[in-house]
Amino acid sequence: MTTLRIAGGRVLHPDMTVSEGDVLVDRDSGEILAVGDTDEGDERLDAADCLVMPGLVNAHCHGAMTLLRGYADDKPLDAWLQEDIWPAEAELTAGDVRAGVDLALVEMIRSGTTAFADMYFHVPEIAEAVDEAGLRALLGHGVVTVGKDDGAAYRDNEESLEVAREYDGTSGGRIRTAYMPHSLTTVGEEYLREFVAAAREYDVPVHFHANETVDEVEPIVDERGERPLEFADELGMLTDADFLAHGVHTDETEHELLAERGASVVHCPASNMKLASGMAPVQAMRDAGVTVALGTDGAASNNDLDLFDELRDAAMLGKLAADDAAAVPAEAAVEMATAAAHARSGSTAAESKRAPNADLAVVDFACA
Amino acid sequence: MTTLRIAGGRVLHPDMTVSEGDVLVDRDSGEILAVGDTDEGDERLDAADCLVMPGLVNAHCHGAMTLLRGYADDKPLDAWLQEDIWPAEAELTAGDVRAGVDLALVEMIRSGTTAFADMYFHVPEIAEAVDEAGLRALLGHGVVTVGKDDGAAYRDNEESLEVAREYDGTSGGRIRTAYMPHSLTTVGEEYLREFVAAAREYDVPVHFHANETVDEVEPIVDERGERPLEFADELGMLTDADFLAHGVHTDETEHELLAERGASVVHCPASNMKLASGMAPVQAMRDAGVTVALGTDGAASNNDLDLFDELRDAAMLGKLAADDAAAVPAEAAVEMATAAAHARSGSTAAESKRAPNADLAVVDFACA
Repeated sequence: MTTLRIAGGRVLHPDMTVSEGDVLVDRDSGEILAVGDTDEGDERLDAADCLVMPGLVNAHCHGAMTLLRGYADDKPLDAWLQEDIWPAEAELTAGDVRAGVDLALVEMIRSGTTAFADMYFHVPEIAEAVDEAGLRALLGHGVVTVGKDDGAAYRDNEESLEVAREYDGTSGGRIRTAYMPHSLTTVGEEYLREFVAAAREYDVPVHFHANETVDEVEPIVDERGERPLEFADELGMLTDADFLAHGVHTDETEHELLAERGASVVHCPASNMKLASGMAPVQAMRDAGVTVALGTDGAASNNDLDLFDELRDAAMLGKLAADDAAAVPAEAAVEMATAAAHARSGSTAAESKRAPNADLAVVDFACA
Repeated sequence: MTTLRIAGGRVLHPDMTVSEGDVLVDRDSGEILAVGDTDEGDERLDAADCLVMPGLVNAHCHGAMTLLRGYADDKPLDAWLQEDIWPAEAELTAGDVRAGVDLALVEMIRSGTTAFADMYFHVPEIAEAVDEAGLRALLGHGVVTVGKDDGAAYRDNEESLEVAREYDGTSGGRIRTAYMPHSLTTVGEEYLREFVAAAREYDVPVHFHANETVDEVEPIVDERGERPLEFADELGMLTDADFLAHGVHTDETEHELLAERGASVVHCPASNMKLASGMAPVQAMRDAGVTVALGTDGAASNNDLDLFDELRDAAMLGKLAADDAAAVPAEAAVEMATAAAHARSGSTAAESKRAPNADLAVVDFACA
């Protein structure tokens, strides 16, 4: 066992209090051995004038989109995806994706992120990058079936499921996976019915985009006479392992349903602003008992992967959405960026009970 | 004449194009002598991997509120002012204000701001700090008459006008001033009538807060049967030298009036989010022909004085407010942070015509 003493910093505790002290970490197992004053430690990291806090969790991103940062700025979601992003992505090779995700990993590490959930393609290359970088990640292949014939649509779903089976638990457990249908409007109902059920058999969660824009809600309400998340619930996509990105245009019925089922929402405030998608009712969701985590979304709709920015945006926009300056206070925003997303970070509940996880960020106030 | 060559950077031109080149500056007069390739210059600043752009203008702040940063976070405007901020400010000495504004100046210089408009008290100390720091500023003493007897209210107004007369044009013209009644609801109509007219005689502009919250609009509409800016117009507060902070809850009638009169609006998106004041209709104002500049407001409602943050917030929130991802594009946000606020920066139109002003920011991409 090699131990590291993170020495003399201000430590943010789970109850959001801060005290000066050392943190002793087992470098091999990745466990926190002690918090307080200690003179142990094979190695020493000086954390004076630093805040020692849980590593941030980016619970929804598309890492390799760092390559598309600033591409087609100032356009709405639908046109942006169809005219610019999807055509560009169709040209990306496995090597491109590897380069893009490498840049994303550097950017996330630099800004205090230790775990992230990623929906993209060429997942084997992404898994390799994560393995080398040492972060935790929940990975998946994003499925879109609209505009594809049945064979291609089927293969896309199979790939998502196969990748999830193959990589779950790899890199010493640092990598977890999910089946990742893009959304309820871009993946056909017949595929969702079949592959969500298959994901359950393989015991992998489901991650998808939902209720991001009005255009994603209205067709479902018009056609089915029910809210999108009621439809998702019928498809079995709202278990307590599942998590959906955005949830901007959700109503009270859906908040109650999410709370009841235990499915989590990943709030992506910067992306929702940049694409003019709307303001997610974060305080209302939290009040209803929904777990809300934070994500940057891809760099193309953000334009960076800095979760500290996202934490600020979540607090600021949450107040506007609630028309209440007391909504989403600082502590809530920090919790959304850390603890709330813990279950999404690739550590299972069982693992997190075993010992406090030493995925820490050391924030230097001199550089803040 | 001592000249400085800012060498080898990427130069942002007034038409928002960027090209590589040098900028030659007269250090004594503060003029730009040449843009392009040159080998002149008594001194040389290496700007490789940097963007050379106009210095940012913070067109509405309360500098010394750096002392109140993070004080009473997560509270709405009215309670925040009355229960926390105003009582704390009542205790501030001239020396406190000097210390607070010194910190503000460092923070603004560090983040690329070269000019700012400031509404506070103990203005002589603020003017001294600005003189030493070398920035441009438009300074004024903020007047509040509610809760004061007539003598005290009168003296507060007189101080604002006297300070404006005394300091206008000082520090070699770097300091300009304005008469600064806090708002239409915190300064009595009788004082506004008298002192706005007096400001006209002394040829100093008027700067005030307007339409920041619904609570500031409704009483005026209820009592007078007209919009707040129609009332301000009757009081003569909307000349093309005047500028008002916030303008969140403004309507079309008011936008047309502002455009017609030439008065400018200073948008403070972070403050409007933090205090849950609302989203200013920035694109609608710009479309109507209103000049919209950017400000951070005080550090207590922001919580920093970094105008690059504000520029991002303006672009992001402007899209949400307009329900259109094409609203407030990047170029518009940059213009709001620079050119649109030029008239507010303490240089008169006559001065800015004389020669391009070398108040520049050199942004190092390696630190961005």
